[in-house]
Amino acid sequence: MNVGGKPYQSIWPDPANPERIKIVNQNLLPFEFRIDEIRSSQQALDAIRTMTVRGAPLIGVTGAFGIYLASLEARKRKDSLAYLSSRAGMLRSARPTAVNLAWAVDRVMQAIRDAGEINEMIRRAGKEANAIMEEEKESCFRIGQSGLELIREISREKKGAPVNILTHCNAGWLACVDFGTATSPIYLAHDRGIPVHVWVDETRPRNQGARLTAWELDQHGVPHTIVVDNAGGHLMQKGLVDMVLVGSDRTTRTGDVANKIGTYLKALAAKDNHIPFYVALPSSSIDFSISSGMDEIQIEERDPSEVRNMEGIGDGEVRILNVMPGNSPVSNYGFDITPAKLVTGLITERGVCPASEKGIMKLFPGK
Amino acid sequence: MNVGGKPYQSIWPDPANPERIKIVNQNLLPFEFRIDEIRSSQQALDAIRTMTVRGAPLIGVTGAFGIYLASLEARKRKDSLAYLSSRAGMLRSARPTAVNLAWAVDRVMQAIRDAGEINEMIRRAGKEANAIMEEEKESCFRIGQSGLELIREISREKKGAPVNILTHCNAGWLACVDFGTATSPIYLAHDRGIPVHVWVDETRPRNQGARLTAWELDQHGVPHTIVVDNAGGHLMQKGLVDMVLVGSDRTTRTGDVANKIGTYLKALAAKDNHIPFYVALPSSSIDFSISSGMDEIQIEERDPSEVRNMEGIGDGEVRILNVMPGNSPVSNYGFDITPAKLVTGLITERGVCPASEKGIMKLFPGK
Repeated sequence: MNVGGKPYQSIWPDPANPERIKIVNQNLLPFEFRIDEIRSSQQALDAIRTMTVRGAPLIGVTGAFGIYLASLEARKRKDSLAYLSSRAGMLRSARPTAVNLAWAVDRVMQAIRDAGEINEMIRRAGKEANAIMEEEKESCFRIGQSGLELIREISREKKGAPVNILTHCNAGWLACVDFGTATSPIYLAHDRGIPVHVWVDETRPRNQGARLTAWELDQHGVPHTIVVDNAGGHLMQKGLVDMVLVGSDRTTRTGDVANKIGTYLKALAAKDNHIPFYVALPSSSIDFSISSGMDEIQIEERDPSEVRNMEGIGDGEVRILNVMPGNSPVSNYGFDITPAKLVTGLITERGVCPASEKGIMKLFPGK
Repeated sequence: MNVGGKPYQSIWPDPANPERIKIVNQNLLPFEFRIDEIRSSQQALDAIRTMTVRGAPLIGVTGAFGIYLASLEARKRKDSLAYLSSRAGMLRSARPTAVNLAWAVDRVMQAIRDAGEINEMIRRAGKEANAIMEEEKESCFRIGQSGLELIREISREKKGAPVNILTHCNAGWLACVDFGTATSPIYLAHDRGIPVHVWVDETRPRNQGARLTAWELDQHGVPHTIVVDNAGGHLMQKGLVDMVLVGSDRTTRTGDVANKIGTYLKALAAKDNHIPFYVALPSSSIDFSISSGMDEIQIEERDPSEVRNMEGIGDGEVRILNVMPGNSPVSNYGFDITPAKLVTGLITERGVCPASEKGIMKLFPGK
């Protein structure tokens, strides 16, 4: 999507030198837009660990390019196979919760396994990493196409008045390679001239909505407004929301959705006000092995410092303040479960389906 | 309630010199606990305008003492009646939305109207201001007694395990003179040895939960934990909340409740999880003239800077940061409406009643 009028991805190999991988440094946003370069498997590892890149699909692609860079490094070593295997192990476990990371690393390792000699390994690793990157883009683009029709329909009902979409957290192109998941239908609608306006939840505690989603939409020119997480219910009561559109970290085969903490509250308000609530997700984030979100998805408790501290600009400098300096304990749950009964539909790369086992199985019969 | 082991009110006349009114400076909390002195009607006006005192009942009492101080000033003037009347006008309109302010100022003015001479005016003004202060305390204490029974009942059902109460914003003693509204049953339960634990919503954008409610509870020794506003639904799904207890800015005669933005979302989650949702309020905040919260209560839009800026401590200093430095527009709705259907009951100074016209009229038949 566009930044300053120019199209970007969150990761791409430098066309002038494909051994250098370019990434958007996400730790600095929205205070600074900086492109960093990954030139070694160690730098790929560091980028993942420090959350310079974040979002499950993007982390996977970064891991895949990490193996490609490791194969270049292996060329200069006698123990090239052992080295590659050790780098793969480190990359796989750089962030243990994102399923995509291990999957992508394994896929590249698999592709080079029987290459025979090192130059062929390098060629295959590069090809596979690029293929994974392109597939992630393609998958997000297809999610966009599936969701676009839903927006178009509301636009028709509203006779072309802007379609108001509320979103929570960042399920945008920064978390993927391009397009995003929840944002993909929004970008496609906007680019096709369908007027949209996005209510962006701030998304405490890490403020991914205010820091990342708002920045993305602003750069691409999509009309939007930031609100505190508390505001969504009121907006819906007042008829200011036509559709809720969020991403998902993990979805059960029955349609229960784990997503950023606070998603469930918006789903309840959508239900109470008869507003469609959609979840956009690649099928890779559906966990076909589990059927109950409440019982089978463990909700991560994160460090209280994420709640206590806020980053911002003061006196021209990026600073961190402690906004809760007292003795009071702080809890920090990362996600919540939106039960399938509150979800109008799932928007996937194969189309839209009801949030139910039957609906999901119809789109993905192989599983 | 206690601060550092010593009982305080949010406002009181200095026993050594009742012409000096002591207040807790609420703008500095929780970074600094400082008692300020109001020595003139102008200082009373300033304290209200700058939100050094805040909360409808407290503002009313401050206005009442403001008239008392104005009567002392009038003693030295020839135009004493005109002066008093002009000060009353200014105090009345220092904050236009709080009904209590105009009501308290008018009540003191009424009490001194036919006093005849200035010393009698001063005597009556002081007496009336003190009476209003005591009545506010009494009213909050009675709310506490009414709500205490509800907590005691849950405590019995839980066989003495801590009763988990979720609250939103600050409906505490700082906003009143003592006890608070939503916090009053909590303080009474705690002081009577019933184990309670309070989930304190941060309450973006102004963070009154994290800044004021958590500070209050900490100082009085009530176990509590701060959570982001997004977390309440998850806590309820997990069985970690036994009761929701909030205050109200205005309640219709049919039981619709206007309160801090985000209250409605917690009420929906409480309903979905079969958790009682109570609103504690003095009957003075029931607007008997209106019957529909959604149609008849105007929701104030406040300055976006409240959302953009955060106050905290960095490098040992209290600073303000801009946490949303981009171009994105920000909306800031102050309140929302919780429809009566989501409210289990209203806790008033006359007891607990259903959130319905019938329930309210039974407790307050005169209205």
